[in-house]
Amino acid sequence: KGGFEMSNQRTMYYGKGDVFVFRTYAKPLEGVKRIPESGFTGRNNVILGTNATIALKGDAFLTSFTEGDNSLIVATDSMKNFMLRHAAKYEGSTLEGFATFVCERFLETYSHIDAVEITCDEIPFDKVEVGGQSGLNESDLVYRHSRNEHATTTVEVKRTANGTEITKQTSGISQLHLIKVSGSSFYGYIKDEYTTLPEAKDRPLFIYLNLDWTYNNVIDAIGSDTSNYVPAEQIRDICATVFNDLENRSIQHLIYEIGLRALERFPQLATIGFESNNKTWEPVVEDIPGSKGQVFTEPRPPYGFQRFIVTREDLEKEGRAASGAAHTAKA
Amino acid sequence: KGGFEMSNQRTMYYGKGDVFVFRTYAKPLEGVKRIPESGFTGRNNVILGTNATIALKGDAFLTSFTEGDNSLIVATDSMKNFMLRHAAKYEGSTLEGFATFVCERFLETYSHIDAVEITCDEIPFDKVEVGGQSGLNESDLVYRHSRNEHATTTVEVKRTANGTEITKQTSGISQLHLIKVSGSSFYGYIKDEYTTLPEAKDRPLFIYLNLDWTYNNVIDAIGSDTSNYVPAEQIRDICATVFNDLENRSIQHLIYEIGLRALERFPQLATIGFESNNKTWEPVVEDIPGSKGQVFTEPRPPYGFQRFIVTREDLEKEGRAASGAAHTAKA
Amino acid sequence: KGGFEMSNQRTMYYGKGDVFVFRTYAKPLEGVKRIPESGFTGRNNVILGTNATIALKGDAFLTSFTEGDNSLIVATDSMKNFMLRHAAKYEGSTLEGFATFVCERFLETYSHIDAVEITCDEIPFDKVEVGGQSGLNESDLVYRHSRNEHATTTVEVKRTANGTEITKQTSGISQLHLIKVSGSSFYGYIKDEYTTLPEAKDRPLFIYLNLDWTYNNVIDAIGSDTSNYVPAEQIRDICATVFNDLENRSIQHLIYEIGLRALERFPQLATIGFESNNKTWEPVVEDIPGSKGQVFTEPRPPYGFQRFIVTREDLEKEGRAASGAAHTAKA
Amino acid sequence: KGGFEMSNQRTMYYGKGDVFVFRTYAKPLEGVKRIPESGFTGRNNVILGTNATIALKGDAFLTSFTEGDNSLIVATDSMKNFMLRHAAKYEGSTLEGFATFVCERFLETYSHIDAVEITCDEIPFDKVEVGGQSGLNESDLVYRHSRNEHATTTVEVKRTANGTEITKQTSGISQLHLIKVSGSSFYGYIKDEYTTLPEAKDRPLFIYLNLDWTYNNVIDAIGSDTSNYVPAEQIRDICATVFNDLENRSIQHLIYEIGLRALERFPQLATIGFESNNKTWEPVVEDIPGSKGQVFTEPRPPYGFQRFIVTREDLEKEGRAASGAAHTAKA
Repeated sequence: KGGFEMSNQRTMYYGKGDVFVFRTYAKPLEGVKRIPESGFTGRNNVILGTNATIALKGDAFLTSFTEGDNSLIVATDSMKNFMLRHAAKYEGSTLEGFATFVCERFLETYSHIDAVEITCDEIPFDKVEVGGQSGLNESDLVYRHSRNEHATTTVEVKRTANGTEITKQTSGISQLHLIKVSGSSFYGYIKDEYTTLPEAKDRPLFIYLNLDWTYNNVIDAIGSDTSNYVPAEQIRDICATVFNDLENRSIQHLIYEIGLRALERFPQLATIGFESNNKTWEPVVEDIPGSKGQVFTEPRPPYGFQRFIVTREDLEKEGRAASGAAHTAKA
Repeated sequence: KGGFEMSNQRTMYYGKGDVFVFRTYAKPLEGVKRIPESGFTGRNNVILGTNATIALKGDAFLTSFTEGDNSLIVATDSMKNFMLRHAAKYEGSTLEGFATFVCERFLETYSHIDAVEITCDEIPFDKVEVGGQSGLNESDLVYRHSRNEHATTTVEVKRTANGTEITKQTSGISQLHLIKVSGSSFYGYIKDEYTTLPEAKDRPLFIYLNLDWTYNNVIDAIGSDTSNYVPAEQIRDICATVFNDLENRSIQHLIYEIGLRALERFPQLATIGFESNNKTWEPVVEDIPGSKGQVFTEPRPPYGFQRFIVTREDLEKEGRAASGAAHTAKA
Repeated sequence: KGGFEMSNQRTMYYGKGDVFVFRTYAKPLEGVKRIPESGFTGRNNVILGTNATIALKGDAFLTSFTEGDNSLIVATDSMKNFMLRHAAKYEGSTLEGFATFVCERFLETYSHIDAVEITCDEIPFDKVEVGGQSGLNESDLVYRHSRNEHATTTVEVKRTANGTEITKQTSGISQLHLIKVSGSSFYGYIKDEYTTLPEAKDRPLFIYLNLDWTYNNVIDAIGSDTSNYVPAEQIRDICATVFNDLENRSIQHLIYEIGLRALERFPQLATIGFESNNKTWEPVVEDIPGSKGQVFTEPRPPYGFQRFIVTREDLEKEGRAASGAAHTAKA
Repeated sequence: KGGFEMSNQRTMYYGKGDVFVFRTYAKPLEGVKRIPESGFTGRNNVILGTNATIALKGDAFLTSFTEGDNSLIVATDSMKNFMLRHAAKYEGSTLEGFATFVCERFLETYSHIDAVEITCDEIPFDKVEVGGQSGLNESDLVYRHSRNEHATTTVEVKRTANGTEITKQTSGISQLHLIKVSGSSFYGYIKDEYTTLPEAKDRPLFIYLNLDWTYNNVIDAIGSDTSNYVPAEQIRDICATVFNDLENRSIQHLIYEIGLRALERFPQLATIGFESNNKTWEPVVEDIPGSKGQVFTEPRPPYGFQRFIVTREDLEKEGRAASGAAHTAKA
């Protein structure tokens, strides 16, 4: 794995994947603005966990391929050590900041490296409630490892004539799985000799979502001032809210509306993209006497997918360009 | 796969696995007693989801193997249909009840079957909050598919001279992943030429747990009266609470105490068993100036495991035999 | 994980899983008898690879649970080291022999252990051909890691009054996936309101098989004399041959015939068991003009399964009790 | 998932993944040239299996997102049906040809589609030998489903003013796992405060490889004339042969040499790219008295990776530009 490409030059990089970093008692995430769709306002960061991928780039590495000359090679084992030890030195509260910090330290330490790209997939640990004399309380010692959706970010930093530059930065969510049991339809599509799917005026829609977003100013993503930072948890809650509210006519329809809402809510974002999968169940018993319930089963393996990026231009065309008012509506 | 065995006779059965059943608007789970360790008091069962495995047993099936005679074979595809359609007829609120209901209907429908065994692994869907004019509310339409721990149950029902009998019943939790960042130790073990593990007076302990429990009276597990039903969510919260409270000296030590607490809290249980895995991180930076934080990484693949069943006899030996008083202490 | 149980006493053990052992240049497996169904006659064991699980059992471990007393605990990390270092001392050529050797060394080294159970899953490495001046040759340096079926074995050794005893021993194959494109049928089963499966007079049958066998005399499985050792590769080839030859009427029918053939071929085996899964494709285009081809797709998730153990009594009932003549028919 | 992007315009497409297609008795692959590194000269294609992903692109789909207007939507379920039914009509012998055929039929059938992109991952079925009266023979009925490396291809076809054009085409291999037990080194790299890896003058090198290649003329990849078709099996065997022959100083060094050899052997290829992972074992016992064997174990999770594309320019710089002579050296 390691899906990194550089344009305009030969494809050449190397690095380390599955670098698991668990930093305890990192700086809490505070100061994020509250939005109407979400109760999320921060994280204590007692555990900041990530599975990271590091890639080093530079013309200096060419002879390691063509001549087997290792003299300029930073061993990938050393990269792992480098990242782990810098986790102790990181003073921020976000994976975006951490990835950027490590990229910059690499460029600072090894002058023959042209660029560094790091992806951090969050390994989330949920809070748990425990009971005692005084009733139920949130534990400050015990956490639950979550295998549900997680945040992700990619940062690339390049060496320039007079310093470094962030040449790529995205944030996102991987594998958010949401179902709406009623209020979704899918009809009106092309019917021909290849069509066997029946139309649905009301179906339970089960979606898997990957999201990725970019900022107008990258400093909002990576800086220590978190007032314009967009937490993945708030984007997740926008997804659930729009899904709940919209009588959607397809996943296409739904993700476009989620995108508009996210860009409306967060004027600091430039784009928000979606990779969606349709995992909708198949109906088996559609009518149960005396109940509004139904019985469904898992569909066959083939799943529909969509890929779409919503931009600020889309928002403007819809006449919904974000204003401060919208942003603070429920604050 | 399907790991079912019968004692005292030849090993022979067949069935269907990965039977995914999603029943919407099943009867809500209500009437469970509150315990001090947990806020759980019920489930709305808007989605009751399970991945089920069905096995049929009986001497009548022998000729299907020895002679390729299919005349008494219920096709496994039909078994799947049978279970899905009976999901529409099930009027209870638990997977234990559902599994038993389907076993009994199989025996009723096919007189040549001697016994039916069904395992139901829960496919959990979490509630989500959505935001609107009136602030945040729990959605009654949108749910999140969870890939974290899930409940599980196995039931076997046999035909007898005058009816049927439940010959096996267990309930459990699969893959509960909990970490305690401080307050666990492991020292005092045998040191010899094969020992390379350093002692730890305070380590972050990361455990994977599978649990399974049995009732004194199976009717408490499967019946429509849920007042003595033990929800997996409450057992999960007992695990977190005991983990939080105990300065544990090993996983062995911890699971024994969890088992005692569970049997103390639930006098209706006969046993509670544990399969635990140790996934504890490896330390990399143990001291960060100005912080109580540390840096850890994923351990090598080999993981320690434990298997232990705690019984009521253990509780009695400890002088902690459950009383009604203990059970309702925090009610 | 770690599925070990002891009868007649409390369930209590602990151990280490995912112990990966790669021993290079182990003693080649030689001296196995050739059978008509297979070209397999030995392995060079340049790489003997296994993923092992070790469980220690004994009453001495009870206080580690009940009192958190670690003084008799062999750390699971030490178990891993123990097994890895003994891989250097093992002088045999089979995983059965290696597992037994390590069990016995554990009992010898730690007098408070009552029993040791080890499962070794083979990690297979296939031979590859490489080309050169002299044409194609089998490489003695490069091997391909296979993710196809692999051998497996479980051995339990217990301490007795005057030494040790092997109390359990099975050998097997995991995840053999075979398809027969024509020559399988499935019809004549029960038709009722739950039946939607159409009968098939000729279907492509796709099966996943796990097999497990036991010996009359365990020494044939574990000893250094390999003349009665039954290699997993030969059992695999019996499966393919019987599948090829038999016009099967169901998986039940097929596995019974495979079992008879294996017991006929190997009089040293006592039993052979099967866990089979049906992964048969679904037909889409059944008739292509001018071709005997068809088009199929992956089935829905639910899969049929069978579990059956064939015994020597079955062979006798069929009048096919193994003779030396049958065994050496094609030698 | 579905990782397709279009340049120069908005990101928008949708489609179907996990479309499993099994075509029996497809046209055999014949007429490929023999190379010295490989015994591969063709496939019988009794089973041509693939897991396919289909993506449709076109401005006409925009309103399905922005307005929930499904009137121009080809349901993804219909796409699946379309592909399956066209598998019956495909008269060629390669996945490259099949993917192109289906792309073109889509553009022909639906005039509002601008482009179609299809990826086919091979699902390989290996030949097996079975035994009988006449000794061992290759079965023409039974095949083994392989989970080892598989071929893969991606094709994009766009509508143009006067027809269609193939705008993307790659072929490749996924997940080839090879180990060389001796004859690999890694030393001479940067040593600093982050270095803990010991140098190795002779290590067992275990690599995972993904490869992708492009042709000078796409017709060689997709056409019915297979004389310049490059089978994945031959590229696989070049990997094994170069690995066997080269005293490599790193994976970088190795993949560059594999790339040169492949471009030398196949003048019809333009580029060959590598994604390599290092899964090299960790040594435990390095010296066993009386044996050249050693004992190793699985490494920690972090793995090194490389990404590099070798081009014909590289071959020219090395003075090894392919000639007909080289190509037919061992024919």
